[in-house]
This record gives sequence, C-alpha cells and structure tokens, in this order.
Amino acid sequence: MFALLNRNIKAVILDITGVLKDSGPHGGTPIKGSIEALNRLHSSGLHVRFCTNETTVTRHTLVIHLRSLGFTIDEEKVFPPIPAMCTILKDRNLRPHLLVHPDALPDFKDIDQSNTNCVVIGDATHQFTYENINRAFQCLMNFEKPILFSLGKGKYYQEEGELILDVGPFMKALEYATGVTAEIVGKPSLAFFNTVLNDIGISAHEAVMVGDDIVNDVGGAQACGLAGVLVRTGKYRKPDENHPDVKPDAIFDNLEKFVDCLLQDKK
Amino acid sequence: MFALLNRNIKAVILDITGVLKDSGPHGGTPIKGSIEALNRLHSSGLHVRFCTNETTVTRHTLVIHLRSLGFTIDEEKVFPPIPAMCTILKDRNLRPHLLVHPDALPDFKDIDQSNTNCVVIGDATHQFTYENINRAFQCLMNFEKPILFSLGKGKYYQEEGELILDVGPFMKALEYATGVTAEIVGKPSLAFFNTVLNDIGISAHEAVMVGDDIVNDVGGAQACGLAGVLVRTGKYRKPDENHPDVKPDAIFDNLEKFVDCLLQDKK
Repeated sequence: MFALLNRNIKAVILDITGVLKDSGPHGGTPIKGSIEALNRLHSSGLHVRFCTNETTVTRHTLVIHLRSLGFTIDEEKVFPPIPAMCTILKDRNLRPHLLVHPDALPDFKDIDQSNTNCVVIGDATHQFTYENINRAFQCLMNFEKPILFSLGKGKYYQEEGELILDVGPFMKALEYATGVTAEIVGKPSLAFFNTVLNDIGISAHEAVMVGDDIVNDVGGAQACGLAGVLVRTGKYRKPDENHPDVKPDAIFDNLEKFVDCLLQDKK
Repeated sequence: MFALLNRNIKAVILDITGVLKDSGPHGGTPIKGSIEALNRLHSSGLHVRFCTNETTVTRHTLVIHLRSLGFTIDEEKVFPPIPAMCTILKDRNLRPHLLVHPDALPDFKDIDQSNTNCVVIGDATHQFTYENINRAFQCLMNFEKPILFSLGKGKYYQEEGELILDVGPFMKALEYATGVTAEIVGKPSLAFFNTVLNDIGISAHEAVMVGDDIVNDVGGAQACGLAGVLVRTGKYRKPDENHPDVKPDAIFDNLEKFVDCLLQDKK
C-alpha cells in the first residue's frame, strides 16, 4: 500500500504525451527520468495503466513506438479513446462519418461506415481542412437526429516548442454551427475513467491520475473520485497552478519526482 | 410615414445576401422581385441602407457587382464590417494579424499590420486552413493582452444549395482554445446598428431591419430597438420561425412581399 495525500493508492494511471514523452517529430522523445520512473512503478506492485487521448495513431503503433523509446508497456494496459468509441458505435448501432487522423483509421476497420448516422471527430491535425470541417458540418445538418462524438476535448498541445490546436476547438466550432452538444469519448469523461478502474478492479479513491492537462487529466480524474496530480512537463504552463476551476491534489516537477514521493511513502 | 406593426417607419435597412441576392458562383443572382422591390423603396421617400456582414470582397467590388445585377445602390449607403473594423483599429492603436478573405484585403490597405497586437477574423472561407487557424491561435497565445475581433458571428450560409460554415464557428474555436471572448464587429453588435442609425439621423424605433438570419439580422436589430423582419429566402429554414430566443416582428415570403405590405400602409 502506498500513501499519497491520505489515500491508500493501489493504482497509478498515467497520461502518455507530456508525462512519459514529449510530442514532436517521429512521435517525440522520452521526458528525462520517465523511463526509469515507470520501471520503478512496475516493480512496486502498484497497478499501472495508461490513459491517453492520443488519436493520431493506432494503439498498436503507439505502443510499438513507446517500446522503441525504452518504455516497458503492454498494449492491453493502454486506454485510448478509439477502442472505447468503437464499442459505443457497435452498442448503439451507429455508423460514423469520420474526421480523424489517417494514421488512426485502422482502429476503425471493423466499423460499418456506410449510410452514416453520426459524426466522430478526433485530433485530425492536417485533415482539419476547411472542406473536411464543412463536410462534417453538412453531415450533422442532414441527419434527422444529429449525433456528434468528440475523441477528447483538449484545447491544445505542445509540439516542437509550438502550441497546436487539439480536437476541442473544432468540436466547439461544430457544436456552435449545428446546436448539437458533442458526447466526449476519452478524458475527461466519467465513463472513460470508469473503464480503466473496472479493468483494474478497484475503486476510484484507490487510484491516482498523473497528467500534464489541468482540465482533462487532473480535473477529469478528480470529478470521477480519483486523486489528480499535475506534472510540470508537456503542455503544462505556469497559470495552470492557479486554474479557476481545478486544484490538483499535488503538483510535481515531472513523473520521476512524483514516483520518488509516492514510493518513499511505502508503508 | 409608413406604418408597420404600429410603428412609424422612416428607414428600411436591408441585409444583402439572402435578401437582395442569393450567394453563389460569381457573386450570386438576384432573388425574384428584389430589384423592383428595392426601386420601389427608393421611390417611396423612405431612407434605405444596406447592412451586411459580407467580408469576402471589398465594399467597392460588392457594390459594382450589385449594380451589374441590376440593383440601384450607392456605395456610401452600404455598411459592411471591415470599414467599421478599420475605424476601431485606428482609434485603439491596434495592429491586426488578419485571417480574412484575400479579396477583402484591399479594404485594410491603410492599416498598419507590423508588430501585431490583435487578431481579426472574417469569413476567410478557403483561408480557414489548419495552418492559418493555428497561426491565429498562436498569435493570441503570445500576446500579453490577447484581443480577438470577429467580423460577425454567423453560423453558416447557403451557397449553391449547400450550407457552408461562416466565421462564427471559427471564432468559437479560437475562443475555446484561448479563453478570450471575441469582440464582434458587424451584425448583431449594437455599435454596428447604431452607426447605420446615426448615418440616417433617426431613432431605432423608426427603422426596420429585413434579413434572412434570425439571430444576427432579426434578433440583433430587435435588441437595438429596431423592428426585425425575417424573409423566407437565403439561408432561412423553417425552424427559424420557432426560434427559442428570437421572435420576428413579422415574417414575409421575400423582400417583394415585405415592400408590398409596407408601402400599401402608406398614410
């Protein structure tokens, strides 16, 4: 058992980009100390899961890449939005018009995309063309009961030193144009965090989420009952420490410092 | 004096696209009956002004085109957002990063665009690329005091039978990403309608606005004290007649029917 903030922590749930690695060309580079920190978590007996809003690659490609960087990580312990999205589409008999990154398309290969009756948007990056955004809008306006899913609602992330728009702003554009409220799949949705907790088989108060996104990682986890820890890496910016709505349970300089603190409190 | 809805109307303010003409290739085509209806308004002794959120051409080009279609129209009676925007930029010593339609750029020719300290977005159509939206976002994030102007906040318009996104959704995307609230220049802003009323020299209750946009034309005018008339042309859609927030003072099939009704009530 590990004590953190007066909780008995049994599981650590980690965001990937901005916590394990920075984003950047060719999938990014490890954040200093994070490979060793993850190995120490694996050796500690704690449950470890990876909860990411990454939608620009397939889960398989993401894991292969993380391994090539030196991270010890199993594919079935990685929870991105697309597999959760596919389950929802099948359960509700929905056939999506996709506005997603081309490299993520293989994860939708089992989904019927004929005669569409909903729109799914992810971090489509350069596929967010004027033409493609208009097409998604026109689909929604033509559906009898328009349904819009957004794979996360992040505002922006950092890449090669620049802030880049994430899916959230494009979701807001479509919401405003159509009057439809998007259903979020991924962080910070309650259902998404619960999928991870159910996989481990623990209660929310026994888990801590570590992320660089004050709203979607920290605030989202807290709203579900997990502890929420902010790290000063990735897209972290100083004003996040005084966010009007979200107050992290703790803030660490990076994953390594968090693991130092967590494991030294071992009872 | 003309009576409409128990008001003594001295001025008619007309939206252009969707009221006088449809949008479409090569600038669109006249809506049936609108050329003659406008001529009858001119002959009636009523003040006539044109209040448009058009930002994809210069004012001069717009007027030349309307004349070529057969409309009787003077340039100084046309009020688009860009001249109003330029006045604001000069008054407040602001230097814009522009995300606007290339054909509208000549109307900004007297504006200093070096060392930018605000962002101005208009209906940039195909210039709403992923790269350009990101650049506007990065500008705002880099300003010490970010200021965003939006030339209108329309959701969409109709072109060649298809609904096309207007500037509003892209404004919402930037607002969400940056946390900045845009200042609207153009309909439905109070200042914009007041500029037109001041030019005529009348009070709001002596004017009627005629438009196809339930929110920006009708609702905007009503919020400023004008009568707001909806026409069933342009981007009008049946649900507009039961809009949750805006109830038009009157609804007519088109401009011709409105003018018929207005002029037959001459006292």
